[in-house]
Amino acid sequence: MHANFAWNVRVYYEDTDAGGIVFYANYLNYFERARTEWLRAAGINQRELTATHGIIFVVSRATIEYHAPAQLDDELTVTVVVRRMGRASLLLEQEAWRGKETRSALLVRAEIKLGCVDAKSLRPCAIPDAVGLKIDTQ
Amino acid sequence: MHANFAWNVRVYYEDTDAGGIVFYANYLNYFERARTEWLRAAGINQRELTATHGIIFVVSRATIEYHAPAQLDDELTVTVVVRRMGRASLLLEQEAWRGKETRSALLVRAEIKLGCVDAKSLRPCAIPDAVGLKIDTQ
Amino acid sequence: MHANFAWNVRVYYEDTDAGGIVFYANYLNYFERARTEWLRAAGINQRELTATHGIIFVVSRATIEYHAPAQLDDELTVTVVVRRMGRASLLLEQEAWRGKETRSALLVRAEIKLGCVDAKSLRPCAIPDAVGLKIDTQ
Amino acid sequence: MHANFAWNVRVYYEDTDAGGIVFYANYLNYFERARTEWLRAAGINQRELTATHGIIFVVSRATIEYHAPAQLDDELTVTVVVRRMGRASLLLEQEAWRGKETRSALLVRAEIKLGCVDAKSLRPCAIPDAVGLKIDTQ
Repeated sequence: MHANFAWNVRVYYEDTDAGGIVFYANYLNYFERARTEWLRAAGINQRELTATHGIIFVVSRATIEYHAPAQLDDELTVTVVVRRMGRASLLLEQEAWRGKETRSALLVRAEIKLGCVDAKSLRPCAIPDAVGLKIDTQ
Repeated sequence: MHANFAWNVRVYYEDTDAGGIVFYANYLNYFERARTEWLRAAGINQRELTATHGIIFVVSRATIEYHAPAQLDDELTVTVVVRRMGRASLLLEQEAWRGKETRSALLVRAEIKLGCVDAKSLRPCAIPDAVGLKIDTQ
Repeated sequence: MHANFAWNVRVYYEDTDAGGIVFYANYLNYFERARTEWLRAAGINQRELTATHGIIFVVSRATIEYHAPAQLDDELTVTVVVRRMGRASLLLEQEAWRGKETRSALLVRAEIKLGCVDAKSLRPCAIPDAVGLKIDTQ
Repeated sequence: MHANFAWNVRVYYEDTDAGGIVFYANYLNYFERARTEWLRAAGINQRELTATHGIIFVVSRATIEYHAPAQLDDELTVTVVVRRMGRASLLLEQEAWRGKETRSALLVRAEIKLGCVDAKSLRPCAIPDAVGLKIDTQ
């Protein structure tokens, strides 16, 4: 678990399913929360991204490996690492871990590609320099 | 189960929780789907409501009684009845039933008050006559 | 905002809808998270409730008033107050507020009735004394 | 859109986010619904899978490409194709399309690997012959 950003999430009833474990789609919620908090830590607020720059980040590709399930009441650590930064896209690696330090277990690992798009047309556009700089220097 | 509109929904994993039953918030999803289909059956498309009339319907009050739980794979019938129609609001009664006809069971009953609001300011506004007429005559 | 328990939640993309505001069902997620943390603060872990006492708490009735909408990135404070404690049920008042102190605004207020039920049969049963005592003395 | 199974889903408010489009995690809900209905069409009920065979299918890997966004009120067609069937796993290809026939557009394509696991231990186990046969002959 070596990451430049980590965010804790708790597993609540809403996240689980009748199998007694976190429903597979809901890890994408956790990953999105961590990305939002990672951007916020870099000084980037997504509502302002749209208001000021007229852009939003959208996920264009996600590869997710489910290694072990999380259960009700688990406390997870969700990480964000930038793998590659392009002109109009970002490649991130994200992981969800249960537990702390020496007794932690990797539950889910994902590679998430984000595209920068115009908030109205939803067409790809360059990441504004001011935004890219904040991400680079976090 | 006497209603002027009924819509079937199936219970999937996403709807259930670790208690093995449908999570209590998710019935509000089912009720919203039924309202959307009820409006559609009256010739009202919500995306057009905003585009043409600049309004959206929002829930201003909900009273929900949970009588019995739904489980994975259950097929539910969700009903819509108009109880009262005001100038800027609508009072609906909605129910979720499991099973058919003589062996059906009432699971959840709700009273839902909808307000008509301006899509931008989110302030209350009158239901457009054209919309009200379609609802009245369904 | 006078409550014996408060829990902060952040509004993420997953919580919002195409109207630009938090989807009405999702406040019930926030209320459930706050109840879970309120129980945890009283020394009650819900997974243990089932494992040790064979019970779960389920919502039997909810009355929700929506006063104002929350939006993306808002930070909300969700409160829990016990209104009445019965042999097999609990009546709670819960509120969601935006902002802090003097500039805060009440967004949603709810009255939530919880029933204590057998985790297998889902039939009502008395709240175990040990559990009731922890709730009473929080 | 050549598939041995297709299932229609409608986009409701609950599925969309403040960007005005379907939230990226929610396509995994649609894919799961389509898999459930595909299994049902093959005579396999997931609640019975657990009750009779003591197993559940869990997603062990998902690769998702987002080509174009779905919006409120869109009607989508979600497909299921078996790519490979192993002793304890299944590789599926799933797609979400908007519209019909000649004017349809591919929105999301996914490769989903399912593992057969013991419902209690969540450890991998062989797909029961009776279940595998039903899938093979669909």
